[in-house]
Amino acid sequence: MRNIALLVSYDGTGYYGFQSQPGGNTVQDKIEEAIHMLSGERVKLTGSGRTDAGVHALGQVANFQTTSSIPAERWAIALNSRLPNDIVVHAAVEVALDFHARRCAVGKTYRYSINSFRFPDVFARHRVFHHPAPLNFGAMREGLTHLLGEHDFTSFTSPLSTKPHHVRTLYEASLRVDAASGGSEASGRGVAHITVTGNGFLYNMVRIISGTILQVGEGKRRPEDIADILAAKNRARSGPTAVPYGLTMCSVEYGPEWGLNWKPPYN
Amino acid sequence: MRNIALLVSYDGTGYYGFQSQPGGNTVQDKIEEAIHMLSGERVKLTGSGRTDAGVHALGQVANFQTTSSIPAERWAIALNSRLPNDIVVHAAVEVALDFHARRCAVGKTYRYSINSFRFPDVFARHRVFHHPAPLNFGAMREGLTHLLGEHDFTSFTSPLSTKPHHVRTLYEASLRVDAASGGSEASGRGVAHITVTGNGFLYNMVRIISGTILQVGEGKRRPEDIADILAAKNRARSGPTAVPYGLTMCSVEYGPEWGLNWKPPYN
Repeated sequence: MRNIALLVSYDGTGYYGFQSQPGGNTVQDKIEEAIHMLSGERVKLTGSGRTDAGVHALGQVANFQTTSSIPAERWAIALNSRLPNDIVVHAAVEVALDFHARRCAVGKTYRYSINSFRFPDVFARHRVFHHPAPLNFGAMREGLTHLLGEHDFTSFTSPLSTKPHHVRTLYEASLRVDAASGGSEASGRGVAHITVTGNGFLYNMVRIISGTILQVGEGKRRPEDIADILAAKNRARSGPTAVPYGLTMCSVEYGPEWGLNWKPPYN
Repeated sequence: MRNIALLVSYDGTGYYGFQSQPGGNTVQDKIEEAIHMLSGERVKLTGSGRTDAGVHALGQVANFQTTSSIPAERWAIALNSRLPNDIVVHAAVEVALDFHARRCAVGKTYRYSINSFRFPDVFARHRVFHHPAPLNFGAMREGLTHLLGEHDFTSFTSPLSTKPHHVRTLYEASLRVDAASGGSEASGRGVAHITVTGNGFLYNMVRIISGTILQVGEGKRRPEDIADILAAKNRARSGPTAVPYGLTMCSVEYGPEWGLNWKPPYN
């Protein structure tokens, strides 16, 4: 038995999320089908975490156990030729048998993208949330700093969360305005990317953070309100859950013992 | 009667090109339908040039005559709310009655995008041609220089061209490797954009140029062969017509008398 880890990108537009569901049409289903076509095996693919319907991934990590003798480095090309073109496997390596893409993950980075120009970029319409009014990017950035460090994120998770506790640590919570888009801080117009890195994320956490920070950018809330919202540990105090398609899972981090040092391809 | 000029972006993936056809489902049809919904008028929209099925535009320019009293600056928002989300009007201005988007154009810029990394970028799959082997970008760049200036481009147009003569002038013919993609000249891997600006383009001209330059990048032809191919005035001498979806019409230039100084939105 061998354990193969995959580095996977997908455009989540056409899928009901990463994880298999009774309704089918998930990224996991598609990769499991491609593995079946290739090796004849019915495997169970384990992702580092779910992504909701419409959410994208640049560097999702997943693993599966196989008895196939196909060399690890051949899996990427072989799977890509059997996958729809909105899912791409960028790398495949053999890992220790006890590697588990979700349980071994020590950090994850997500990005939420917002365009505040008057009109959307047609080519990014499935990947960037269009908010056609100026935003106070500086205030959004300041609001994000209150989320850094260890906090109970109950205010920033769905009441549907099944996790026993909601304490997580954010190592990064930043916003950058894409210079190539022609945006600027002064105009409040631009394509902005909120990047958050943490040791773990709760259900809808990045989308609720983004929806709340968006209200800070609109002037509906002050940056320092974020600290109060955190302290309240009450989902009713934060803002709306931002639409899924602005969210991208960028990368997943593992300890050095696993030998996975994967950078997300593209950006 | 007023004459309105529009600056339009579209993702050409789902359309049979810009210009109306008996089969329908073109960008022109969609915009004409949106104008009809808005003003009740059946207008004929004139584009600066056709784009083939699957070809995209960042800054296509089109115009139409209307008796509507809707202020010019309102047309963009009003049309966008009636257009599918893969077509976006970025600006609308009233222009002189004798402005004609095709006949008044004095220059156009196109881009052809090629990705030579092993695996494609899922988010650019409809917009960048994937060529999964290293390319000699320097040789491609050198090949392009032979196309600069005034030439008879018969070797680089489809035999279906109906134009009386094939002499055109290219002001720019360059290649740049997108640094953000992580590509490099040394590795021959990267996302490369061929940019050509000229006073006019023949049918399939940019795609045949790109298909031929790609062969230079593969080492199948020498850069200086481009000069010989031009001199031959024979389509059989050049390379294949590159796939349409790698091509984007970036911008259209008009003389200062028309007061249109439009930069393509995004990139």
